Amino acid sequence: MPADSPFVRSADRVQFRPEKMAKCGLFSSERMFCDVYALLPGQEQRLHRHSGSDKIYFCLEGEVVATVEDESRVLSPGDAAWSAPGTEHGLRNESDAPARVLVFMSPPPHH
Amino acid sequence: MPADSPFVRSADRVQFRPEKMAKCGLFSSERMFCDVYALLPGQEQRLHRHSGSDKIYFCLEGEVVATVEDESRVLSPGDAAWSAPGTEHGLRNESDAPARVLVFMSPPPHH
Repeated sequence: MPADSPFVRSADRVQFRPEKMAKCGLFSSERMFCDVYALLPGQEQRLHRHSGSDKIYFCLEGEVVATVEDESRVLSPGDAAWSAPGTEHGLRNESDAPARVLVFMSPPPHH
Repeated sequence: MPADSPFVRSADRVQFRPEKMAKCGLFSSERMFCDVYALLPGQEQRLHRHSGSDKIYFCLEGEVVATVEDESRVLSPGDAAWSAPGTEHGLRNESDAPARVLVFMSPPPHH
């Protein structure tokens, strides 16, 4: 299926990587991207900031600890976290099971 | 929990409405919004277009038929559809069970 198909099965895109958290792309445009992050136990997205973008984490499977500025919460399926522009944020799988997190970012970072 | 909290449990926000599809807001900013749409059997979001925005539908629960231009597909949990700017799109719950769909739109529509 081409990257710009209007329909995607996320199960076809998600692959866990033993060496680090995997970013599995679903859709992207000039205005946003939508990925699934796949985190094995102990994997993380380190704390970082984006100056002009919102990012949303939405837990699909497993449990992850999401941090936004000075607050951390365990996200279970159906739980979400939002990082406003300039806000420090990150994820960590502190559980003993794989976790999948849907990620939206708007606008996408500049490369 | 205030609307601009960085953490949300979607289960606390989703309420089905017998009269029509319910839009349950999770987060919004000048750059995007993130809602859960709650569709009882027979409920729909009619076909429409947004001239300058991307919209993503991500099925969380149940089954919905998503249409993007001239193609319709059944979305099950984990399946997603993307509507580019100017592209006609809509949703319909043709099943006999409730459905929940995560919706991300960037930028949000102008009111």
